[in-house]
Amino acid sequence: MAYGLLKGKRGIISGALDENSIAWKTALKAYEEGARFVLTNAPIAMRMGAINQLAEQCEAQIIPADATDVADLEKLFTQSQEILGGKIDFVLHSIGMSTNIRKGREYGDLNYEWFLKSLDVSALSLHKMLQTAEKLDAMAEYGSVVALSYIAAQRSFPDYTDMAQAKAMLESIARSYGYRYGRLKKVRVNTISQSPTKTTAGTGIGGFDAFFDYANKMSPLGNASAEACAEYAVTLFSDLTRSVTMQNLYHDGGFSAVGISHEIVDLMTPKE
Amino acid sequence: MAYGLLKGKRGIISGALDENSIAWKTALKAYEEGARFVLTNAPIAMRMGAINQLAEQCEAQIIPADATDVADLEKLFTQSQEILGGKIDFVLHSIGMSTNIRKGREYGDLNYEWFLKSLDVSALSLHKMLQTAEKLDAMAEYGSVVALSYIAAQRSFPDYTDMAQAKAMLESIARSYGYRYGRLKKVRVNTISQSPTKTTAGTGIGGFDAFFDYANKMSPLGNASAEACAEYAVTLFSDLTRSVTMQNLYHDGGFSAVGISHEIVDLMTPKE
Amino acid sequence: MAYGLLKGKRGIISGALDENSIAWKTALKAYEEGARFVLTNAPIAMRMGAINQLAEQCEAQIIPADATDVADLEKLFTQSQEILGGKIDFVLHSIGMSTNIRKGREYGDLNYEWFLKSLDVSALSLHKMLQTAEKLDAMAEYGSVVALSYIAAQRSFPDYTDMAQAKAMLESIARSYGYRYGRLKKVRVNTISQSPTKTTAGTGIGGFDAFFDYANKMSPLGNASAEACAEYAVTLFSDLTRSVTMQNLYHDGGFSAVGISHEIVDLMTPKE
Amino acid sequence: MAYGLLKGKRGIISGALDENSIAWKTALKAYEEGARFVLTNAPIAMRMGAINQLAEQCEAQIIPADATDVADLEKLFTQSQEILGGKIDFVLHSIGMSTNIRKGREYGDLNYEWFLKSLDVSALSLHKMLQTAEKLDAMAEYGSVVALSYIAAQRSFPDYTDMAQAKAMLESIARSYGYRYGRLKKVRVNTISQSPTKTTAGTGIGGFDAFFDYANKMSPLGNASAEACAEYAVTLFSDLTRSVTMQNLYHDGGFSAVGISHEIVDLMTPKE
Repeated sequence: MAYGLLKGKRGIISGALDENSIAWKTALKAYEEGARFVLTNAPIAMRMGAINQLAEQCEAQIIPADATDVADLEKLFTQSQEILGGKIDFVLHSIGMSTNIRKGREYGDLNYEWFLKSLDVSALSLHKMLQTAEKLDAMAEYGSVVALSYIAAQRSFPDYTDMAQAKAMLESIARSYGYRYGRLKKVRVNTISQSPTKTTAGTGIGGFDAFFDYANKMSPLGNASAEACAEYAVTLFSDLTRSVTMQNLYHDGGFSAVGISHEIVDLMTPKE
Repeated sequence: MAYGLLKGKRGIISGALDENSIAWKTALKAYEEGARFVLTNAPIAMRMGAINQLAEQCEAQIIPADATDVADLEKLFTQSQEILGGKIDFVLHSIGMSTNIRKGREYGDLNYEWFLKSLDVSALSLHKMLQTAEKLDAMAEYGSVVALSYIAAQRSFPDYTDMAQAKAMLESIARSYGYRYGRLKKVRVNTISQSPTKTTAGTGIGGFDAFFDYANKMSPLGNASAEACAEYAVTLFSDLTRSVTMQNLYHDGGFSAVGISHEIVDLMTPKE
Repeated sequence: MAYGLLKGKRGIISGALDENSIAWKTALKAYEEGARFVLTNAPIAMRMGAINQLAEQCEAQIIPADATDVADLEKLFTQSQEILGGKIDFVLHSIGMSTNIRKGREYGDLNYEWFLKSLDVSALSLHKMLQTAEKLDAMAEYGSVVALSYIAAQRSFPDYTDMAQAKAMLESIARSYGYRYGRLKKVRVNTISQSPTKTTAGTGIGGFDAFFDYANKMSPLGNASAEACAEYAVTLFSDLTRSVTMQNLYHDGGFSAVGISHEIVDLMTPKE
Repeated sequence: MAYGLLKGKRGIISGALDENSIAWKTALKAYEEGARFVLTNAPIAMRMGAINQLAEQCEAQIIPADATDVADLEKLFTQSQEILGGKIDFVLHSIGMSTNIRKGREYGDLNYEWFLKSLDVSALSLHKMLQTAEKLDAMAEYGSVVALSYIAAQRSFPDYTDMAQAKAMLESIARSYGYRYGRLKKVRVNTISQSPTKTTAGTGIGGFDAFFDYANKMSPLGNASAEACAEYAVTLFSDLTRSVTMQNLYHDGGFSAVGISHEIVDLMTPKE
């Protein structure tokens, strides 16, 4: 069902890797809701077959950009405005990468070059996007920026290692830049703290199945799906949430507010 | 602008006192978005002229109910289902009253009967609504309940006295019942923590103008208006937020995440 | 090992039911650290044999007082000052009771008279103590008030029912009164959010063993013991924490900041 | 007044720049309380005259170490154990530096090399310390690590720029490593979120006087002093807080829990 919530809006959506990506679902949903947008991804992460198909489906153009490279981001914002014919109304930041996780490094044995790289790619890239947008005056008044986060920013998840710090930093940037951009242009900046999601990125984390299952059993509504996340992102891009900013918004089926669930009590109760 | 976000949905909206009320604006907005609903208010709080006008505008019926009285709430949920022709999809809880505030009692000189009354009216009423709805099986699957709160639940505001405790309790009920109703029927329960708002209720609090002005100067987007709050509530009633539950959601122009603003720095800086 | 941290300090310790109570351990520890204090309990909750033994061990007098009864509290603060020979330096609030829990009522079938009684006994009693103390000017400058709380104030625990609201309210009172008493007399008010503890009160809650075990497996340091809680309370009563106020302090072996632990991952991982 | 709280304990204290430093006061207080420790600082930051005087006062040796350099940290932990004759019981991390702040860069005009340097020095250094200590098995069981933070980790302070992200990351590391080290060795890791303090570092931040004054007026106990912070740190190093870990502990006179104070209401109220 579509409502036209984003009719006439121009956007930039990063991070659509394949059809499991939250960004992918957000692109489809934003398109349904009437938005026009540009897709972007790191040249290195792009699976051209896949993203071309999405672009076609959404009548979108693709602008490859390394989100850690300010020159690339300048090109992204400049070209996006040319292609879409005006300033940008919404941005989805869905970018994260940790070599420490990929290489299976434990938290007591991290490589610090990789750690700084995790921060640069997964968090600082949001600041770079926003600073670039501001310098180019590329965002429309009342624009909306959403970045995807995870509750590891608040609580310890053993296998999430340096991404916990990256997400804490990402949410902090949303607050700091949300303050700044709100005053300048009424632009709001928020993070969505999403349930563990069976994306290609998510499932790369050790023990993912166990904590996916655990989160599902803890959450009264079960884990939030990628589709539901896309729908939620659309409300945040819309004009109906113009006073929400600097927030980290849990989209998690209730997980963040559960101490223990019946299902986990059952698991902990010795069977006779 | 309307999107049809609530097309086909049935609701109950409490607390529309007069045209300054957030509940009043929510009724207008929900109506625009296609919902049908019942209006309710405490018999004692109803200004019949005013609410009749709203009811007419929204093609709504009015069911007076004292939200602290379970029998009244049973009647409310039973009749609402009859009138609207099915189970209830959304409920707005916008109910608050403190005799200690009305009588200007300081926090070190509270009357305890009034204190318990504040809790009963402003917080326990949410539990009573939910328990009644559950017992009558009156909520539709994937229904949405929103209660209005204030950041005094987290931080001290001198003149808010016992309402601070009422709001803390209200948010706690949203978490506890959100867990329960989520598992039972996928019903979600959230609170919106709204900017200080120039409603008839709000302006009754001592020093209101000062903290309205302060909050406005602290918030990068300024204080969120009652209209904006109504729009936000509509997104929470819609099908686009089906995985958000047990949350307290700041709708405050950023206030909750600001430590100090430029405007307040200026105020604190001695002028020569 | 004793340090003399509370040498010369006068206190009131409520809630020492039997030797499993946190209040009991706090009394022993405070005595060791050089404090003199009065023990108090509700007449109805006192097990005279037990508390007399504690009183003897600590050279303390016992003043029975119903903490919901302002007249009793006036007597408590007046007599305590007489007995101890000066204003009160520290207070431990360790009072909680829910008939809904005792009677095994589910959260969707609560009795509202009992609910209000839970709030009155478990939370409002803290306000009554503080308002009484303030009116009698019974607290010494730089005094310290600590109330015992539980993380059910922030997250849902199915069997904790209305005590979740009572604890949320208790913590809110600590903030509100902490603000007030801090300005008036430099008195600080905090809550300790303690691990589930095998006290006589704690073990009355349904499913207690399961969530005790769960919390223990989630917490890197294991559940905090009652003895450790007593030691922590002593630091908060001491002069070394004079700038800590209005806080809810987790004393829980890390539980509150853990998303998932290795032990729970193991439990969730299917065995071959 | 001294209690012998740290008698027999061995520590490492970083960041004692001059007599205004919190680390300096912590060294004095820890010495008074019976600890023996090593002082450390970045070679570049050391003012040899000053720190030599402190070292003499505390009978401490000085080991210069760049906290971003793992080899230096290995030397620090190895030599400290040799000097002190055993494993380390407590560590104070009091390290922070932002070239963006020093150069007066606005948040919309940050230099990204400096940004990463701020993170490395002010936050990653804590991970490096802990990983090094773990690899060398340098911490004693039940050891305690405290890092100094600021509420800019949670709320926006305009002039704090990239240090807001550094502090958010620092607190996140305390949670992640606290989990790990707690399970391994019962070592606890916490951050103290301290009031703005008139240290040499603090006063370098733009608008410092205004937000110092503002925080002071907002906090019912006034801003916490550096001396009080030292005393609080001592309680966290002591054996009385063995179940507190992974926490960010506000030591701020109540600031974090205040929405608005009487003093600020007065400022906001127009004078006739």
